[in-house]
Amino acid sequence: MSHADEIKAIIERRIEALRRRDAAAANAALDKELVAFEVAGPLRLQATDAATTQAWLDSFDEGPIVTMEELTICADAEVAFCHSLNRIQGRRVDGQSVDVMMRSTLGFRKREGEWKIVHGHTSVPR
Amino acid sequence: MSHADEIKAIIERRIEALRRRDAAAANAALDKELVAFEVAGPLRLQATDAATTQAWLDSFDEGPIVTMEELTICADAEVAFCHSLNRIQGRRVDGQSVDVMMRSTLGFRKREGEWKIVHGHTSVPR
Repeated sequence: MSHADEIKAIIERRIEALRRRDAAAANAALDKELVAFEVAGPLRLQATDAATTQAWLDSFDEGPIVTMEELTICADAEVAFCHSLNRIQGRRVDGQSVDVMMRSTLGFRKREGEWKIVHGHTSVPR
Repeated sequence: MSHADEIKAIIERRIEALRRRDAAAANAALDKELVAFEVAGPLRLQATDAATTQAWLDSFDEGPIVTMEELTICADAEVAFCHSLNRIQGRRVDGQSVDVMMRSTLGFRKREGEWKIVHGHTSVPR
């Protein structure tokens, strides 16, 4: 498996875990020193805990289904990054339907033989 | 010079060129296949030409001065990325002062022995 294929498999497992609303599985690839720039504030988060992710996932009763477009992966032996346009679809428990396009960038580092997501940047254009 | 030091030098040269409002120098490190996610739309740009950068720079009569905080660089031999909080300060030609904090992520790839910026993601939290 190429480095890029390893990265792709990690992202696909994360998306599949989000669809199942399984925060622990979705966050399994997150490094404990993750620095996240999310769509909403604050400027940056320094960790993502499963409880926060689970609360977000539990706000859906359908999805969230993430579909990646234009995924580009640059991977070396120990450092990699990727970017894509991610369509998020679903329905909130309050009945509100969600269908939004976001820009996603992820940074990876291999630690003790395992790829970890050390950086995430998600935004929508203003 | 470590890989990370090489990356840092490229970013600092770019910031210095922006301060001089020299678009050609600022864009020298941009790969011709750059994919940029900018603060304003569209969802993504597939190239950044010097004319567009120059028009933006020419809208300033002081700055733009970019100050990086919390710069983190992950670099391997041929792939690297970095993220930082960038404060942009200056004054527009119409007299409006600018002082904004943005989140910045850059992706690099070494091509023919030279680091090029192949991806940029800039945003402000909503």
